[in-house]
Amino acid sequence: MGDKPIVHVPITKVRGGHTILQQDELAVEEPLLIRVGYYFKDRFQTRDVSVTMRTPGHDCELATGFLFSEGLVRRREDIASCHSIGVAPSQEIQLDLNAGVDFDFARLERHFYTSSSCGVCGKTSLEAVETAVTCPLALDGPGMEAAIIHQLPDHLRAAQSVFDKTGGLHASALFEHTGSLVDIREDVGRHNALDKLIGGQLLAGKLPLANKLLLVSGRASFELVQKALMAGIAIMAAVGAPSSLAVELAWRSHMTLIGFVRAGQFNIYSGPWRIRGSSVNEVESTA
Amino acid sequence: MGDKPIVHVPITKVRGGHTILQQDELAVEEPLLIRVGYYFKDRFQTRDVSVTMRTPGHDCELATGFLFSEGLVRRREDIASCHSIGVAPSQEIQLDLNAGVDFDFARLERHFYTSSSCGVCGKTSLEAVETAVTCPLALDGPGMEAAIIHQLPDHLRAAQSVFDKTGGLHASALFEHTGSLVDIREDVGRHNALDKLIGGQLLAGKLPLANKLLLVSGRASFELVQKALMAGIAIMAAVGAPSSLAVELAWRSHMTLIGFVRAGQFNIYSGPWRIRGSSVNEVESTA
Repeated sequence: MGDKPIVHVPITKVRGGHTILQQDELAVEEPLLIRVGYYFKDRFQTRDVSVTMRTPGHDCELATGFLFSEGLVRRREDIASCHSIGVAPSQEIQLDLNAGVDFDFARLERHFYTSSSCGVCGKTSLEAVETAVTCPLALDGPGMEAAIIHQLPDHLRAAQSVFDKTGGLHASALFEHTGSLVDIREDVGRHNALDKLIGGQLLAGKLPLANKLLLVSGRASFELVQKALMAGIAIMAAVGAPSSLAVELAWRSHMTLIGFVRAGQFNIYSGPWRIRGSSVNEVESTA
Repeated sequence: MGDKPIVHVPITKVRGGHTILQQDELAVEEPLLIRVGYYFKDRFQTRDVSVTMRTPGHDCELATGFLFSEGLVRRREDIASCHSIGVAPSQEIQLDLNAGVDFDFARLERHFYTSSSCGVCGKTSLEAVETAVTCPLALDGPGMEAAIIHQLPDHLRAAQSVFDKTGGLHASALFEHTGSLVDIREDVGRHNALDKLIGGQLLAGKLPLANKLLLVSGRASFELVQKALMAGIAIMAAVGAPSSLAVELAWRSHMTLIGFVRAGQFNIYSGPWRIRGSSVNEVESTA
């Protein structure tokens, strides 16, 4: 996708009973491997430190700020150079430390290795970014009426016990295709809210969730789409925007991904065939 | 803080030139250590897998959903039991697997250990959650006019190049106390946006940032406050809500933390003495 922060994709905009095919802009989300080059007993060596899902651009600043805020790089003088590996668009960056800089890898290994609130991030190899999806989605299967999706924001608001009070919690909610609420979880971390929801369904013996819709209160990231796919969810909707990689993964997995779900309107980014009552009335070119 | 999803704290509400002391509700954010109990060569043993910042409640579901979506637990039958460790409010949960369940710890270690988009999460010991803060904040130092903070949302909107187009990017912006913009970074990950901003300042030799204000586009989490503290930032403002632990850390570190920054209004959660023109006019009791 290059190193631009925005890509253009074709989407289906649903506005009430009206449907428009249109180009839309997405924020780019791509993995970046951060590698550190350092001297150990006078020998230069490198080590992979982290893979993060980021928007391309300012990658050296990202690596520097990350290593600094973790207390692993202390001052500008610690850094010899920073450069992308391979040809653009690069998914790897290497930050080299000066000889004599004491880089505490033992601390790194002792203190970190995984993360619940960020799912895919924290992997140290790019191959590890895609967890094996165990429940491939059926291409046919039941669909949903657009009119029911229009009502989801109201249902979510009614079901959220804490959100309205503090404005500080994300929600993940599971709905039947008829629009009735199955379950909801809230958390300061959006990945936690979804982990709680899926964990509860697994403990109740209800996986895979092929005939359910997932609604998340914020944006749809690659990691949230991946968690939903693991649980076999075929239709996922977000109140906010999806990222480029979220749409790409949904597309490849035949998932129906919906964004910007508001009263009376939403956008379909992939798998529009599962949404009934959203046949195309109009094609607009805005690119 | 117990295991409730909400806590009440005293805050200073600034509404134009009017100021009110009031109780407010915050979403609780607390660390949870996830431990897995498993059989290896017929011997039962335990292992710490992750520390995540979460809202208390449904912790077994969280552990289950996390391990499932990472592909480490496959079905309900894998799980023998799940229980909190120690007395409530517990910060540790243990999920025990049945004998014969093959748990791939090698995969866990190979694929994860740190994370850029989630800062503090990914630690495997609770002690590691607090990275050493290298720049203690001065209690005196320069303050800011409330009138300048009222204008920040407009300044942020004007500076955000991508956000308005996609609705999918978080921003971190650095301002002088006079209100002029120093620098801004955008990213799909809010921790990435702040890492890029701080990394850029470090590379430019401008740390610590004691005389600057940090504005973040979303909510203020513990991890964002921690990154700001590492960079020596004394005044931090968020467009959204802060979490309970973000406020607690700001309080202990003498940082001024501001939330819900909108046109003409904001809330002060800690360090109100740095904000001029916000003396208390009124005390309301809503608890």
